[in-house]
Amino acid sequence: MIVLRNVKKVREIINKVKKRGDTVGFIPTMGALHEGHISLIKEAKKNTSFVVVSIFVNPTQFGPHEDYRKYPRNFKKDKEILKQEGVDLIFYPNVKAMYSKKFSTYVEEIELSKYLCGKRRPGHFKGVCTIVAKLFNIVLPDIAYFGQKDYQQAVIIKRMVKDLNFSLKIKVMPIVREKDGLALSSRNTYLTSHQRKEALSLYHALKLAYRMVKNKKQPPTIIKAMQKLIKKEAPSSKIDYINIVDPFTLQDVRKIEKRVLVALAIYIGKARLIDNMLIKR
Amino acid sequence: MIVLRNVKKVREIINKVKKRGDTVGFIPTMGALHEGHISLIKEAKKNTSFVVVSIFVNPTQFGPHEDYRKYPRNFKKDKEILKQEGVDLIFYPNVKAMYSKKFSTYVEEIELSKYLCGKRRPGHFKGVCTIVAKLFNIVLPDIAYFGQKDYQQAVIIKRMVKDLNFSLKIKVMPIVREKDGLALSSRNTYLTSHQRKEALSLYHALKLAYRMVKNKKQPPTIIKAMQKLIKKEAPSSKIDYINIVDPFTLQDVRKIEKRVLVALAIYIGKARLIDNMLIKR
Repeated sequence: MIVLRNVKKVREIINKVKKRGDTVGFIPTMGALHEGHISLIKEAKKNTSFVVVSIFVNPTQFGPHEDYRKYPRNFKKDKEILKQEGVDLIFYPNVKAMYSKKFSTYVEEIELSKYLCGKRRPGHFKGVCTIVAKLFNIVLPDIAYFGQKDYQQAVIIKRMVKDLNFSLKIKVMPIVREKDGLALSSRNTYLTSHQRKEALSLYHALKLAYRMVKNKKQPPTIIKAMQKLIKKEAPSSKIDYINIVDPFTLQDVRKIEKRVLVALAIYIGKARLIDNMLIKR
Repeated sequence: MIVLRNVKKVREIINKVKKRGDTVGFIPTMGALHEGHISLIKEAKKNTSFVVVSIFVNPTQFGPHEDYRKYPRNFKKDKEILKQEGVDLIFYPNVKAMYSKKFSTYVEEIELSKYLCGKRRPGHFKGVCTIVAKLFNIVLPDIAYFGQKDYQQAVIIKRMVKDLNFSLKIKVMPIVREKDGLALSSRNTYLTSHQRKEALSLYHALKLAYRMVKNKKQPPTIIKAMQKLIKKEAPSSKIDYINIVDPFTLQDVRKIEKRVLVALAIYIGKARLIDNMLIKR
């Protein structure tokens, strides 16, 4: 396993690897790796012959009052995991290598970014699109892997790939959950043991939504019931949003007729947790 | 010479060509080709083994009251020229092929775009960066060629290539002028024979600036003299801007100490003409 911090060196290796006929699988991450990331890596190992993982806590996707500074970083442990998974190359740049002093070019998706997390975190997806476009140009993957937990991110990246004609495929893998249902997230490390129990309310609310959609209930009723459940199970929580949206446009659905995405973001203490579920009527 | 209108087919050819070891030279154009474009093609023919020219009048780089509709289009003549120059592939997409209905991703440079033409044509360079990023991802050139006549465009594209880690080189070629000094431009076709004479005032103003810089005059004096010359030689003209700027930052220079860029945009009738000159003190 190669570990590189330098863009040019990554490019050299990738050129070599591509010349010899390898296909490149790529998983961009912010480190603090968990089973969710590992599921992406395992899939990449199946589909491609050279697997690259980037670890970079990207400052441009954090708002000024968000958790950029305290976001968990543990390169030593991450490296151990990636070695065990048989990853071929870790790209682990520092901020200066990715953003020069004169950096002034951004990639922005302006339609799908208006909703859900995009509405609550202005500039977040602009930061995400910019860093992912950069990483795609450096790593030149044949397939890049994203998790469904960041559902909106995945559809925005897919949109960017189509719009800007990137020559690669995006593969989105299912949410990985703890046994009790909590969606894996690097931010779960922020939770105290009490908050950890409260955090389960996100999954419980989604399961409730699942039952209610199947029982032909409509969004206003479902959302109210979800809010009530969360307030009960996690009294100290703060609901950032709960939305029932079209899985393609991310716009609110008034009347459920086909498949919907139920998505929510909840503050449990200082941790802002997100989760979602695709539900077919 | 191959002519393709379809993105996927271009990609297929480029992949084939790269596999056999060719290097790709690329000249993005809006057609209405002239000796300026041809100088870029000739350079590409020297440096690379497979030369691609795109012809696409890009709607997103025109403002709502600009000349998108009447911009000169003459594919038949352009094709003849490109054949004679030994171009290997023309990419000639239509608007739908480049901008799907759901298109919503843009590339924007936000620092260098604040000045000169960027100030006068809001959104112009966002349109340019977006289409050029798309074309780079489709054509995957080793070297892309731009003309110095669009000086600001060239430095912004260079910035974008660095910032977004495109794996290619940008080569900027000198302005090609008519015998009397008028910079070649597709928009020169808009000029009546009277306006054609008035249009020469741009070059004369730049030559005046050249002499004045060499004579240690400073920007306010030089710009006033240029304005006076233009008003005299082209009484019906309208000055859009005349600036003396740092060639790297594009910011106004107060006191000339090293090399400067003198840049101007002038309306001659309905034609907005631009020209520039790099002048060393």
